[in-house]
Amino acid sequence: MINVSVLGYGTVGSGVVEILKENADLITKRAGEEIRVKSVLDLRDFPGDPVQDMIVHDFEEIKNDPDVQIVVETMGGVHPAYEFVKASLESGKSVSTSNKALVAAYGPELLEIAQEHNVNFLFEASVGGGIPIIRPLKISLAPDEILEISGILNGTTNYILTEMTNNGSAFDTVLKDAQDKGYAEKDPTADVEGYDACRKIAILTSLAYGKQLDFEDIYTEGITKITDRDICYAKKIGAKVKIFGSSKKVGDKVSAMVAPKLITSEHPLYSVDGVFNAILVKGNMVGDVMFYGQGAGKLATASAVVSDVIDEAKHVNVNMRTLWDHEKLALMPMDEVKSKFFVRVKGTKDEVQEQAAKLFGKITAVDAGFDDEFGFVTEEITEAVYEQAAKEMEIINKIRFDA
Amino acid sequence: MINVSVLGYGTVGSGVVEILKENADLITKRAGEEIRVKSVLDLRDFPGDPVQDMIVHDFEEIKNDPDVQIVVETMGGVHPAYEFVKASLESGKSVSTSNKALVAAYGPELLEIAQEHNVNFLFEASVGGGIPIIRPLKISLAPDEILEISGILNGTTNYILTEMTNNGSAFDTVLKDAQDKGYAEKDPTADVEGYDACRKIAILTSLAYGKQLDFEDIYTEGITKITDRDICYAKKIGAKVKIFGSSKKVGDKVSAMVAPKLITSEHPLYSVDGVFNAILVKGNMVGDVMFYGQGAGKLATASAVVSDVIDEAKHVNVNMRTLWDHEKLALMPMDEVKSKFFVRVKGTKDEVQEQAAKLFGKITAVDAGFDDEFGFVTEEITEAVYEQAAKEMEIINKIRFDA
Repeated sequence: MINVSVLGYGTVGSGVVEILKENADLITKRAGEEIRVKSVLDLRDFPGDPVQDMIVHDFEEIKNDPDVQIVVETMGGVHPAYEFVKASLESGKSVSTSNKALVAAYGPELLEIAQEHNVNFLFEASVGGGIPIIRPLKISLAPDEILEISGILNGTTNYILTEMTNNGSAFDTVLKDAQDKGYAEKDPTADVEGYDACRKIAILTSLAYGKQLDFEDIYTEGITKITDRDICYAKKIGAKVKIFGSSKKVGDKVSAMVAPKLITSEHPLYSVDGVFNAILVKGNMVGDVMFYGQGAGKLATASAVVSDVIDEAKHVNVNMRTLWDHEKLALMPMDEVKSKFFVRVKGTKDEVQEQAAKLFGKITAVDAGFDDEFGFVTEEITEAVYEQAAKEMEIINKIRFDA
Repeated sequence: MINVSVLGYGTVGSGVVEILKENADLITKRAGEEIRVKSVLDLRDFPGDPVQDMIVHDFEEIKNDPDVQIVVETMGGVHPAYEFVKASLESGKSVSTSNKALVAAYGPELLEIAQEHNVNFLFEASVGGGIPIIRPLKISLAPDEILEISGILNGTTNYILTEMTNNGSAFDTVLKDAQDKGYAEKDPTADVEGYDACRKIAILTSLAYGKQLDFEDIYTEGITKITDRDICYAKKIGAKVKIFGSSKKVGDKVSAMVAPKLITSEHPLYSVDGVFNAILVKGNMVGDVMFYGQGAGKLATASAVVSDVIDEAKHVNVNMRTLWDHEKLALMPMDEVKSKFFVRVKGTKDEVQEQAAKLFGKITAVDAGFDDEFGFVTEEITEAVYEQAAKEMEIINKIRFDA
């Protein structure tokens, strides 16, 4: 029998308890042993809830419980999650977490502690919710040098952009609707500004190269500037606007960013709509592989957490090596990163086309029927070239064009 | 240092040797140990090839080599692959294979032998080529009861159907072209009759439920009867024809089949075209997850084989339990399986519509502009009802409609 303690009885934590109960028989079979929840840490009490008698208010109780072999951390936030996870690992307990903020900030340190204590620190649920991506990236793609990762990593923003595309609605209207439906938080900043996706691409990229990519170093642009006019232009060129967390090997460096991008129907992630997430990984041997599913939600995310718990139950006192050093990954300066850009500038086509071509190089005009502005797509240019040229014109908006 | 022996220096086998050489540095890092090919079994010699000095003609030499810890089986076919794999496992060597015929026929026995000898028998490459699907199904989806698996599991037939759809060409023309391009074998039977997909869905379904589903018991229908007229009808209803290997939990039984199906753009696999493969798995907790990539090809398939080799190198003398018993999976009789059917019958609409409705129940006519026949879609009916009704009319073709 394996005893589990769950830290935080919120959405994901209660999902973990539910899955371990509902699917108990098959989980016992697959793990080779019964896995049961022994205690649940929460500041609140839950009278009438199945866990009411398991609630513990003091983490020390769990840390000092020799029966607890696996700790599930679903509290969210960096502190005190970090202190609790660290103490759990140091007490010889394996940890499974859904906490992307924790993993992005302290991944290498916690993995090192787990290795020292011959236990495991797993975090499948920290990226892509229920989509198996961390384990496939670590194990299934281990033979491959990773050339590129492109992910639709945030369901809230993908939902908003999908609705804007399908209904021509404005950003604010769709955000309000998403909040009403519970798809977006009251304070949507982390989602719409790309901070959530940024931590996720930091984790994936660090794992792909075995070195630390600090999320603070990743250029991050949200979707708040995307308007219905951008969507009109996108449709004109047969494209959709999606926000990507992406990274790419360029020589001996890696470029990384979070930004809205235009993609056409040729792109494997073109049809990933609504709250769904998907991650495309390009390996130097396997080519393109893609993983798709529910990027959030109680049971989908909890399923990923429980997959880690089962794996840990099968690896008691055996550390499964995860390569993710403290050493910093060599990041390509954003200035040098190359993209095509879709650009909208003030002024009529006649007034500004010539100047745009002089500044941005070869451009292709896009006519979406607006008389007071001029839209065009550049060839592949560096961010530095874009920035320099943009200074000379009245830019309304720009979106990178992944084609 | 881990020594590997490769049985069969064909397409996949030579890909394995290439990957272990080309990506040696990162594989050493990820495996925690150097992995090198020590010997290659083949009847032929390969003068001038990097493996020329490793070639061995007698399997006994490999079996009796105490230095060889991992055997890669990429010979294909059931015999002597079965005898060689069995002997390897009994000699305490782990085995990684790409051989779907072997795994479908002898999976439970070979897994049992591996467990007895504390080694591993892995077969990621046997389904979906380079797509990580076996390991995610076994480990990432371990918390879930699997409700449904739907896979585009054969690149050759998906390529043929895609070309028929895009260019309106006839089956024979596209097959010939696919053979010329090397996408189809000279003898295309195993692909176009669905036998290849049948073994793959047998493996996936057996793993999903931990019991043996014999591929011989799976209803299997190929794509040789699909004509350009079927494609016209498909387009009329906004659908594509794809051949699926699929299985589904219905009560305490599982239904399984290989058959062409019509799917609309709502289906997550609608845009999986050309030689690509994709597998959709529905779990009772995680919901829909989808895996996509190159279902065949030298390096993609070899990458999957090498991922197993690395996993085995990390699990020396530790059997990773795989649940797949000899016990037979309770298969739902095909008669009871329910589908919607798209049906084409001889005669004009006026002549046969009434009779069709009498026989098949509520139907929806589809007009693709052919005067000498009548096309319609039924509601969901059992195979038995379909068969009974079909006897009474002159059926030109039928395709199940997954909508």
